[in-house]
Order: sequence, then structure tokens, then C-alpha cells
Amino acid sequence: MATRSTVPKLRLLLARRIRAERGRLGISQEELAERTGLHRTYIGSVERGERNVSIDNVERIARGLGVQPQELLSDEGK
Amino acid sequence: MATRSTVPKLRLLLARRIRAERGRLGISQEELAERTGLHRTYIGSVERGERNVSIDNVERIARGLGVQPQELLSDEGK
Repeated sequence: MATRSTVPKLRLLLARRIRAERGRLGISQEELAERTGLHRTYIGSVERGERNVSIDNVERIARGLGVQPQELLSDEGK
Repeated sequence: MATRSTVPKLRLLLARRIRAERGRLGISQEELAERTGLHRTYIGSVERGERNVSIDNVERIARGLGVQPQELLSDEGK
């Protein structure tokens, strides 16, 4: 949840990029959860920007999506 | 510390990139801590790859270093 003056923009970008890459692959949150070993509800909350995701989980999610981690933090592919 | 089968490579890359960018600026861990509002000992443990840093803190550290967050997860500038 965004509080005070600083909106965690990176978190929201990550959320959007994961949704976009998952959509590109045409897989469900359940499928991504299975690929990453994370829980479906966790994936859902990450995609809504509710989670302050750890770097280790960014790596797992990137691997599950078949992209480089930095691609999930970059606006280029928007 | 790397355990079991999967080494968190991204975490170690992040650690190395933060050290490199801080060195480029010629600032101490104390100075980076002050710029980010994080604790000096936390910065130290991040730079040793001991911390599973959150995405919000990656953003704060990138801002403190004056780089884009994805630059901290990319090997290009090595």
C-alpha cells in the first residue's frame, strides 16, 4: 500500500510487467504459480502491486516467465 | 548465503552492482545509508548478498545512487 509521500513506483511497474508477460505467454496465474513454486494468491497480490516482492522472488518469477529479471523492472517493452 | 540447489544469482548481481555504483560515486556505506534512509549495517549486508532485498528498497537504493533500478539488476555496465 502506498503511504506518505513516496509511491513505490517500481513495485507497480513490476506488477504491470508481470501481468503483461504472463498475458503474452497466455498462461494463468495458477500456471505461473506452478512454474515458480509460489502460491497462486501470492502471484495475484504481486500482480496487484500489493506485495513488496523480494529480489529472490523477482528472480523466480522472471525464470517462470522466461525473461531476464531486469526486463520486469524496465518500461521499455511497455 | 547460498543454500540448497538454487543460488540466488540475482541477489549477488544486485550486491555487486550496488557496490560498483557506490564506488563510482566515491561515497561510503554511511553516506548511501543517509541518502536512502536505510541503516548502514543493512546496506553492508545487502552489499554482501546476505539480504533478500525488497523491491521497494531496490527503488530507494537506486534513487540514492542516481541510477535506474533496472541498471542494478543488469550485468551490462559491469
